[in-house]
Amino acid sequence: MTDSAYGAAGVDIDAQDEALARIKQKVRSTFTPGVLSELGSFGGLFAPDLGGLDEPVLVASADGVGTKLMAARLAGDYSTVGRDLVNHCVNDILVQGARPLFFLDYVGAGVLDPGEMDQLVGGVADGCKENGCALLGGETAEMPGFYQPGDYELAGFIVGLVDKKRLIDGSRAKPGDLILGLPSAGLHTNGYSLARKVFFDVLGLGVDDAVPGAATRETVRELLLSPHLSYLRALEPWLADERLHALAHITGGGLTDNVPRVLPDTLGAQIKVGAWEIPEVFYILQEHGDVSTEEMFRVFNMGIGMVVIIDPAAAVEMMPALAKAGAKAAPIGTVVEGAGGVVYDFPPEATPVEATESDELDSSSGDDAASGTS
Amino acid sequence: MTDSAYGAAGVDIDAQDEALARIKQKVRSTFTPGVLSELGSFGGLFAPDLGGLDEPVLVASADGVGTKLMAARLAGDYSTVGRDLVNHCVNDILVQGARPLFFLDYVGAGVLDPGEMDQLVGGVADGCKENGCALLGGETAEMPGFYQPGDYELAGFIVGLVDKKRLIDGSRAKPGDLILGLPSAGLHTNGYSLARKVFFDVLGLGVDDAVPGAATRETVRELLLSPHLSYLRALEPWLADERLHALAHITGGGLTDNVPRVLPDTLGAQIKVGAWEIPEVFYILQEHGDVSTEEMFRVFNMGIGMVVIIDPAAAVEMMPALAKAGAKAAPIGTVVEGAGGVVYDFPPEATPVEATESDELDSSSGDDAASGTS
Repeated sequence: MTDSAYGAAGVDIDAQDEALARIKQKVRSTFTPGVLSELGSFGGLFAPDLGGLDEPVLVASADGVGTKLMAARLAGDYSTVGRDLVNHCVNDILVQGARPLFFLDYVGAGVLDPGEMDQLVGGVADGCKENGCALLGGETAEMPGFYQPGDYELAGFIVGLVDKKRLIDGSRAKPGDLILGLPSAGLHTNGYSLARKVFFDVLGLGVDDAVPGAATRETVRELLLSPHLSYLRALEPWLADERLHALAHITGGGLTDNVPRVLPDTLGAQIKVGAWEIPEVFYILQEHGDVSTEEMFRVFNMGIGMVVIIDPAAAVEMMPALAKAGAKAAPIGTVVEGAGGVVYDFPPEATPVEATESDELDSSSGDDAASGTS
Repeated sequence: MTDSAYGAAGVDIDAQDEALARIKQKVRSTFTPGVLSELGSFGGLFAPDLGGLDEPVLVASADGVGTKLMAARLAGDYSTVGRDLVNHCVNDILVQGARPLFFLDYVGAGVLDPGEMDQLVGGVADGCKENGCALLGGETAEMPGFYQPGDYELAGFIVGLVDKKRLIDGSRAKPGDLILGLPSAGLHTNGYSLARKVFFDVLGLGVDDAVPGAATRETVRELLLSPHLSYLRALEPWLADERLHALAHITGGGLTDNVPRVLPDTLGAQIKVGAWEIPEVFYILQEHGDVSTEEMFRVFNMGIGMVVIIDPAAAVEMMPALAKAGAKAAPIGTVVEGAGGVVYDFPPEATPVEATESDELDSSSGDDAASGTS
């Protein structure tokens, strides 16, 4: 078909078919018992196991990985963004108490390179397998002229299931609740426009350069492509525990916007900065990006990928269990009366950033540091 | 925020918030009784009505609208592609017998213009309402540098429901079955790379120019943005009728690839070209794009948006009912023994294309005209 009229218009249907054949193999490896359809049917078929559920509720979410895709292109490595996407979606429905059933992906590209597609969709399949989630289908669109060669858009869609009585909606939260923070693995999938600007434009680094001052000796590539973590395995045993009052996935909007989203309108959160270790990458981004602390906490996760709001009495049991499951939770704050959103307490003896930012810090330690968009 | 460091990196969170607020209003208007969640929660919640279903099966599909998006940009009109996307997805799960429950959209853009977002997502919401499908959520991603201003990516995800015993999987199809074609409204969402090339590069037309030779006096804009039809309302009354043996949504791959997808491996289809009216736009595209007839039937829907394969005895009842529901079905062929994919019969007295293509026509009327990818 490449020399056909349609091929000349930029669409190579055979190359697309080749990529799709490889992808199908990987997709099939994620199939769980609920999957009824073969690949290639118009829609994917999934028979959910509704045993023991009084009122089944489907929980669905759509997401992308934003400009982390541009970091992937610069690094020439498309193998990590698929897992990022799945884990992001898994976390988004986990906060309402749902376990994932299935996932669908959408890939848009100017030219579908079979090797790059393998990395992309292979990563999606790996992420699905790790979360026990079937990759039920997807769409691959070759759109010459719309996308530049090497650019891939990647969006995903997840459907999970929860019994209505097990929905986690924050209504159990009350003043005095303990706020636990589960560590992120870096930027996850937010703040990449700013991060790319700092690393490439301000610092003039290449993807394989070491990040100056990074104690861990990480390269730009490692910092930018570190995976978005899934918290499903760590939190799954606690989803039916009534002492767990709310969960917040810390994505775009940071702690500032995402914690209020899961609290009743009458409650706020007091977060103690210094109660957890903020990864060095955020200090580097703040210093060289000339970003206020207020903004840092709204754009980035600042080292916390998931917030768990619990009855304080449960901490003695829950914290060791989470640590054993790989998520070393830190107590980072408490739920307080009043619709004040998130109020940050900064340690008086040390600022989390360079001295030049101290004025900024003072102003952002007030109760108007940022307005929650709950 | 526009003068903040993050704003300077190209992301305007406040403009994004403004667009999101408008969108929320439109989205809320699509909510059906199954929707439990408020907007702004991490995942959308949907409690399906499972009454009367023995074995509920979820049917899910992901799709985009391809480079029809570029036609929308050229025409400065983003109000139609949302409905295209929803109708496309509705048809994709309809062919397996499913009625839609909910839809989620993904919009990627370099700059989110609130007016353009209104058109885009407003169109998605309109499409959802028309199909009785809740717009349960979505993701809007501002990705400066990845997308050019004015470019929008639009992907959608649909979930529907069917009782397992009502699944339509083509297994009832048998030789002698009648193939009905339901008319499309033009290109729907396929073949836009070629169509744009013909209209803009070969013919040198502008979006508001009349298409030369188009008997209907349509403009390029009207031809390119004519909506993708949903066949849900017309076919819904027949989904539980066992005389309906298979349904095929005619999208990318045309009749050639999509009809074999829904037939058992042992069966093929004989399609009688001339049994329905091929809209003039396809003749124009073939002539000026110098496209073989074989390729035309693989790239475009050629005027048939949905194929309905039935027990011939049902035609006398079904055809008038479909016509009354707005889908004037034409008998376009029959199911035949053998895994030959689609075989086209061309009328001997007239070719559907210009004389210069007659050699091409002869060769494509053989049984190898195109191999089905069932």
